[in-house]
Formats: sequence, structure tokens, C-alpha cells
Amino acid sequence: MVILDGKALAAKILAGLKSEIGDRKLSLAAVVLGDNPVIQKFITQKEKVAEKLGVDFRVYDYEAAISTNELRKRIATIVHDADPDGIIIQLPLPEQLNTQYILNSVPPEKDVDMLSARAVGDFAVGKSKILPPVVGAIRAFFEEYGIDYRSGHVVVVGAGTLVGKPVATWLANEKVSFTVVDENTPDISEFTEKADILITGIGKPGFITGDMMKEEAVVMDAGTSEAGGKLAGDVDYDSVSPKAAYLTPVPGGIGPLTVVMIFRNLLVLSCKGANSSG
Amino acid sequence: MVILDGKALAAKILAGLKSEIGDRKLSLAAVVLGDNPVIQKFITQKEKVAEKLGVDFRVYDYEAAISTNELRKRIATIVHDADPDGIIIQLPLPEQLNTQYILNSVPPEKDVDMLSARAVGDFAVGKSKILPPVVGAIRAFFEEYGIDYRSGHVVVVGAGTLVGKPVATWLANEKVSFTVVDENTPDISEFTEKADILITGIGKPGFITGDMMKEEAVVMDAGTSEAGGKLAGDVDYDSVSPKAAYLTPVPGGIGPLTVVMIFRNLLVLSCKGANSSG
Repeated sequence: MVILDGKALAAKILAGLKSEIGDRKLSLAAVVLGDNPVIQKFITQKEKVAEKLGVDFRVYDYEAAISTNELRKRIATIVHDADPDGIIIQLPLPEQLNTQYILNSVPPEKDVDMLSARAVGDFAVGKSKILPPVVGAIRAFFEEYGIDYRSGHVVVVGAGTLVGKPVATWLANEKVSFTVVDENTPDISEFTEKADILITGIGKPGFITGDMMKEEAVVMDAGTSEAGGKLAGDVDYDSVSPKAAYLTPVPGGIGPLTVVMIFRNLLVLSCKGANSSG
Repeated sequence: MVILDGKALAAKILAGLKSEIGDRKLSLAAVVLGDNPVIQKFITQKEKVAEKLGVDFRVYDYEAAISTNELRKRIATIVHDADPDGIIIQLPLPEQLNTQYILNSVPPEKDVDMLSARAVGDFAVGKSKILPPVVGAIRAFFEEYGIDYRSGHVVVVGAGTLVGKPVATWLANEKVSFTVVDENTPDISEFTEKADILITGIGKPGFITGDMMKEEAVVMDAGTSEAGGKLAGDVDYDSVSPKAAYLTPVPGGIGPLTVVMIFRNLLVLSCKGANSSG
């Protein structure tokens, strides 16, 4: 079994990005609500990468009780006045907020996370120059390790905004045959055990166990949740690792690569005329 | 086996639409390239429904050799000058044209077919008040016949723009477990025979045969192709009909319902503030 080393691949891609960016001064704004420690950890990861790349990273903190309209106004002000090359809205947002409506306030040419309806649509119709960060991370692993994802069957566990949906859209565009299941699917193993490649993003620690998969499957764990104060994926490492051909660990797998992909998107979008909005 | 009667259900929905529209004067523009007889047939079907509903249906014919930019200009003129409540671009377009770029020139508030990137994105993020016509047609059958599509597994054959992709997006939004395969999938039967509901839209007459499915499956045939001068679906009727619990015929199944759904979308979009573009 090969452990897919996200830290090493992230460092390699980062080095390439750094030379591509060169002397250019890119800027990335991060909108953060409240003071959730998990969210803070994600922001710190992005801040560190920004520093390595010389990207001007600005955090815009607002109180968690802000209204949807007020937050939309603040984002419009950031777009208009600071005019950064990219904007991220750190998820999850507090419950009272209309998350999608807020994500839609990020203009497509600054939407490095590709979570606005505009960016999602451009991607779905095959008119986007960038990839959703988690898709970019998964594809980078496939390329680096020479994993053929086109000829087998892919099973996606979870249909969420950050993992399942963008991955499914990508697979449909790539004409790869795939299945989407989630925790409510009756007899989920019936599907997961058909997977040549299993991509999981439901946020349930230990949900994917070795008995649910076939021998020599490729297991990509994009789950992010907390278990006992530590970042956890969806995969039960002890039972999955003896059966898998390849496995992404958590932490140190898809996570660090996803962060790097945000900056790759920032670079691509900052190049004039790079994004399609036709 | 129950044959799902698209003509009867279309007539029923049409009657409801007619009374909802009442005296209102709605208008629908259809952009048609060249003089392909199959395309002409589709336009005639829409024209007939428009007439029944008292919708002002205008066909804008252009020569097949038109350029992408010229056609975009013509569409912009229609939007600006005629300002219809809805616009359809009859597909397929001639090969020299950039189809998606042309579809994107339809403003979302007039996009009854939901094929622009904007409309696709709004739908994917769950912010659309209307459904892609083929999805509306399939859902109408499920509702009319009391077919539970949520608890079983759905298999979608084909990942095209008009059927497979919008159906997959809808299923992901509805949290239904599903599989997408196409004609290139090795051992496609391995997946189709797991389907409680089989939705097919690849445009290959007779592609789906009885040995590929399980007993008592629901078979929704959204394939449209021509065989011997007649409209054909994807299903081999003789082998599928003895095994299926429900089957949509071609013609007279999903087709006529899809046409009606275009007009339902027209009505919804014409109601001020009905579509989301936030």
C-alpha cells in the first residue's frame, strides 16, 4: 500500500507556483466569522502558504451575529475598495446566514474556491480555466502517482458542496463512470465495494472501513471533521490501509494540497482574461 | 407493466398552465439554425403547445453558416428589442459554432431551457425556482404515478448536456444515491442491473435491453434519435417491457412532457422576481 504524501506534493507544487508568481504582488482576502478554533486553524494553514508565496493575505473578521445583508455589503466593500485578486469565505458560516447567497457575492474572477453559483455553472458547462480546489488536489495526486482514474469506476461518498458535488461534476465532464452515495444510502457497501477509486467527503470519522471496499482500491479521503480535538478524515485507517493500493492520510493528504490549489487558482485568475465568463 | 403516458400527463399539466396564464400575454422566442427536418419537428411541437396556451411564439431563423459572434449579436438584439419572456436556442447547433458560448447569451431570467452557465450554476447550488425541462418531466411522472425515487438507486445512462448532467445534478441536490455510466463504461450492465430506476439519454436506439436491467425497474427513456425516419428512444421495447414495472414510451413519453415543462418555466420566469440571481 502506498500512502499518498500530500505534504510532499504540496511542497513540490508550491515551489513551481513560487517561481511562476515571481515578483508579482498577489493578494487574497479571507472573510472569517466569529472565533471558532477549527476555522482559525484552516485560516492559519492558508496564511502560512500565502507567506511562502509572498501573497498579501488579509483576514476580514466579522462578528458571528452579522446578518446576511450586512455581510454581503461588507464583501461588496472589500471587492470594491481593497480589490484583492481572490476572496475566500471561510466555511461553515453561522446558521442564521444564507450561505449560498453570501458565496454568490464573490465575483467569478476572484472566486478561487469556486463556490459561487457563477463559478459552479462555468465549471459544470466546461467553461472554467480553474478547478474546484479539492478536485485540483485529487487530480494532482492521480497525475503524480500515475493513477488511471478514467477506466475504472469511481464511487463518491457524500454529496456536499465542498467535496461530493464538485467531484461529481468533474467526473461527469471527464466522462468517467461514477456513483454518488451518502450515509443515508441503504446498503452503502454494495456500491463502495465496486469502487476502483473511492473518494470520500462526508465528515464522519472512521465511516469507511476495510470491509466496505475491494482489494487494491484507491482511497482518497477528503473528509474533514474533528475527533478528540484532532483533525480526522472519513477512513478507518487500521482496516482500510491493508486493503488499499493507495491511500491519502488525514492529516497530510488531500488537505494541504487543497490549500495549495487555492493559490494556484489565485494565480490563474489574476492573469488577465484567464477566466471565462462568456 | 405500466406504460407512462406522456401525452395524457402533458395534456393535464397544460390545462393547469392554461388557467394559470389566463389572459396574460407571454412570448417565447426560438432561435433556429438551418433547415434540418428533425429540428423543424421539435419546433413544430413547441409551436403547437404555444398556440394552445396563447403564447406568442416567434421563430428566428438564421442560416447554418452564421458565425458564433454574429449569432451572439443577433440573440442580443432579440433580448433587447423583442424582449420576449423566454428564449430557446434549438439544439444541436452547426459544428462551427461554440454551442455553450451561444447558450450563455441567454439571460437567466429568460432561460427556460436552463442551458446557460448561469442557469446551470443556480440550479446546481439549489438557487433556482425552475427545473431543467427534462428533470421537470421525469419528476412529473414520478409524482403522477406515485413512484418513490428517493429510497432506491438511480442509474443514469449518458452524461450529456440535455439529460444526463441535469438529472445527475438534480439527484445530487435531492440526496438520492445514483450512478452515471455511458456507452464507454466497461461492463455497463454491472451498473444498470442495480438500478431501481433507470434514466437513459444517450441517443442510441435499442441500446438498453431487458438483460441489462433488474425485474420491476422503472425505466425512463429520455433518448432522442432517429431510426428509419422515426423518432426513437434508447430502449429496446420488446425485451424491456416484459421486465419493467413502469416504462416511458418513445414517442409519447418524456418528450411531450419536456415540451410542456418549457412553458411552465416560461410562466414561472415571467412572474417578476421569481428567478434567483443572488
